[in-house]
Amino acid sequence: SKKLTLFITHGHEDHIGAIHHLILAFPEMEIFAPRFAEILIKNKLAPRKINKKIHLYTHKDKLKFDEYTLHPIHVTHSIPDTHGFVFHSSEFSTLFISDFKFDLNPSFENPFDLLKIKKLLATSKKSLAMLDSTNILSAGKTLSESDLIPDLEKIISNEKRTFITLFSSNIYRVKNILELSKKHKKKVVTIGRSIQNYLNAAYAAKIIDENTYPVVDLDSVQNHADTKIIYVITGSQGEHLGAARRIISGEQKNIQLNSSDQFVFCSKPIPGNEAKIYRLYNMLAQTGVDLITSKDMQIHASGHPCQQDLHSVLSEIKPNFFIPIHGETYFLRKHIQFVKGNYPNIETILLQNFQGVEYKNSKLKEFSLQEKLPSIIHGKDLPIERERISERRKLAISGAVFISLNHKSQNIKIDLKGLPIEMDQHIPKMRDLVDYCAFSENKKRDHDYTIEQVRIKIRTFCNSLLGYKPITLVQMV
Amino acid sequence: SKKLTLFITHGHEDHIGAIHHLILAFPEMEIFAPRFAEILIKNKLAPRKINKKIHLYTHKDKLKFDEYTLHPIHVTHSIPDTHGFVFHSSEFSTLFISDFKFDLNPSFENPFDLLKIKKLLATSKKSLAMLDSTNILSAGKTLSESDLIPDLEKIISNEKRTFITLFSSNIYRVKNILELSKKHKKKVVTIGRSIQNYLNAAYAAKIIDENTYPVVDLDSVQNHADTKIIYVITGSQGEHLGAARRIISGEQKNIQLNSSDQFVFCSKPIPGNEAKIYRLYNMLAQTGVDLITSKDMQIHASGHPCQQDLHSVLSEIKPNFFIPIHGETYFLRKHIQFVKGNYPNIETILLQNFQGVEYKNSKLKEFSLQEKLPSIIHGKDLPIERERISERRKLAISGAVFISLNHKSQNIKIDLKGLPIEMDQHIPKMRDLVDYCAFSENKKRDHDYTIEQVRIKIRTFCNSLLGYKPITLVQMV
Repeated sequence: SKKLTLFITHGHEDHIGAIHHLILAFPEMEIFAPRFAEILIKNKLAPRKINKKIHLYTHKDKLKFDEYTLHPIHVTHSIPDTHGFVFHSSEFSTLFISDFKFDLNPSFENPFDLLKIKKLLATSKKSLAMLDSTNILSAGKTLSESDLIPDLEKIISNEKRTFITLFSSNIYRVKNILELSKKHKKKVVTIGRSIQNYLNAAYAAKIIDENTYPVVDLDSVQNHADTKIIYVITGSQGEHLGAARRIISGEQKNIQLNSSDQFVFCSKPIPGNEAKIYRLYNMLAQTGVDLITSKDMQIHASGHPCQQDLHSVLSEIKPNFFIPIHGETYFLRKHIQFVKGNYPNIETILLQNFQGVEYKNSKLKEFSLQEKLPSIIHGKDLPIERERISERRKLAISGAVFISLNHKSQNIKIDLKGLPIEMDQHIPKMRDLVDYCAFSENKKRDHDYTIEQVRIKIRTFCNSLLGYKPITLVQMV
Repeated sequence: SKKLTLFITHGHEDHIGAIHHLILAFPEMEIFAPRFAEILIKNKLAPRKINKKIHLYTHKDKLKFDEYTLHPIHVTHSIPDTHGFVFHSSEFSTLFISDFKFDLNPSFENPFDLLKIKKLLATSKKSLAMLDSTNILSAGKTLSESDLIPDLEKIISNEKRTFITLFSSNIYRVKNILELSKKHKKKVVTIGRSIQNYLNAAYAAKIIDENTYPVVDLDSVQNHADTKIIYVITGSQGEHLGAARRIISGEQKNIQLNSSDQFVFCSKPIPGNEAKIYRLYNMLAQTGVDLITSKDMQIHASGHPCQQDLHSVLSEIKPNFFIPIHGETYFLRKHIQFVKGNYPNIETILLQNFQGVEYKNSKLKEFSLQEKLPSIIHGKDLPIERERISERRKLAISGAVFISLNHKSQNIKIDLKGLPIEMDQHIPKMRDLVDYCAFSENKKRDHDYTIEQVRIKIRTFCNSLLGYKPITLVQMV
């Protein structure tokens, strides 16, 4: 049996969020991660009391695996310390970069290391590239993180109390905000656990020097009306528990928005979050606060490559094979169309979930693995099955009626959950129905039959009033 | 008391969907509607057995109301027979167009009637404009419906079996598809109730001539593999019951998609529907069907004006006052910023829900009405209260435990809903807890106390396993 090894490219939640489940399922597995991701992983494992060795790597390392040497590649993305990999041999090499942007002028870090990739692939007979498909629908180039500085400076230099919400993990953007705040003599106050956690990780990884920037604690703010404060806050996706929603809805103590404030979304809605975010925009519009989004100013840059960026990479490295990754099937297919249309000499392969490829006799051959439905976990680590989720959906859609009855005492209890208040008036009528059905009509029948008759009667009765049938549970004790 | 009159501008659901509630609440109210909307309203009232006179109007009519004359204005939109209004007097006139696009080259209808508006406002001392804010975030011009014809023709002339999904109410787009299908000798088959209903309404209103176009019924199709068929189908928003989802998931009998088909979305996701629609795109990508969306070809045009279109209207009519309408508060505020920035002579007013304006002494004065929470109706016409919806949400988030018990017999029944299957194993333990708590520890206490103790014990026990507390209902009979 082969040794299992997990390589972490960077510390985003979709790459490390489930890691403790993997560790529990595969205790022998070795884990390699860059420093910033390692800190974030340790933060996840500590409260679960999981003690697991994480091997650190940097872009300077080389790791031997059988005939292959793994070369981590420094790439740019929307979180520090992100890597791609070249799995290199003189016969065959694979470039794998799951998340990246092609930034040649980033803030505080080196540019995307295209040269190293080129050199490595040039010393291999054949090569395969596996690249990020997130922005494949967008032509053009992704903005550099440094392209945001001018508009961020306009905002921060404004003599207004300022609230900036952004993805907390985008530490270089946070650092730009700290830098500009320092320059314009503003105090930075963070609100929200996530921004504090990422900042602490950045201090620990020495990405931000804790002593250089004027970040103060929320509790140490004396005068919240101070226009010299830049609040850097969580909740850019409209999360219910995020600081942005709390502040905008007036639930954050000591902070009351007014029309001389500015509220800045250095972010974009992740598809699916639009409605929640627009609710915040509307609340802000009612307060008269100056709302600034990335539609108004150049204050958000994606962390993923657009078509021109993919051109910049592919036209330089000219791989023999190409497999699109990091995207839904629709995006992967679009990515294949893009590569086929522009690079007819590259052989493309669409790999779906539970498929793999093997390199043999100068060819890539696909193979299939046993498909498994993903586990859905809610709360603690207990998975919940699809049919039980579907029960929850039915409860939410139709509400519920609970009935218990006792034959001897002829007692009946009826409770409604999630039904219109007007239905409460009909409980006596339901009681009559149950009484008739259980104690007169079917008193000689067995309990299961009676219970089912009661259930049907009550559902039919409710349906006549509601137009739908609530979940109805009948218990006889 | 003043007579209540309802003017319907067009037949979209957000303008007529709740009309029967209004009729029941205000039986004396008079209703005016254009012909196409009237047919759609009647379709809604008939199954509810509501017989209500609807007065028809056309853009040629003039309707007197006290000192004002109401002039319906022919405007272009994404459904036939849409109107704006000028409420005219020599002192003061109001232009009100809730939904429109500024289309000077539409298909099958006259262009937006700017001239009539200009003439009317010119004969009034002061004027107010109230215009559509839907697309205020977009610079540029909205495409004309006729701009779609070239790409629609490319698609329809393809020798492929074709599925086209679109908003069923966009009858002129449907008519363009019928026209092109006829030209290229394709048969049109509709799937989905909504497209059939709107087509029937269009026949009745003589907007489409039933005998001119080769629309056949789904059941009359002999060979579903026929590449001469254009299926025009519902479900462009990924609706669960829509034809698009049924066909893509293989649930529509006789229709099996294959890689030589083309599947066309002549539509755009309404914010909030992205996830559902991407699920369809992904399923299509897996089947290898040629998926075409409005990102690939020019096959969708909005029904609302972008900034350039609003310029075209405002720069010609030059009103004294402006109130943005038809949009969330965020959009209304953006619309005001747009007008202020470009037309400094126009006085703008932000009207929110439950606010009105009155014209007096050459000035517009706002006033406020009593605010009311909107009714939420699910199923039949019974409104459901917010706290009951919140109960549903809790049931969906945490699942439920139902317990009934009888003191005399010491019987206990426990049912779980929406909890992981593994929890079923813990029912005996829950039974022990209930038994101890109800029959040993508290047997002398009153029922309410016992019930509450059982509830707390069970919730605490579940929380230790699940990490959250299910809704727990205890009944004693």
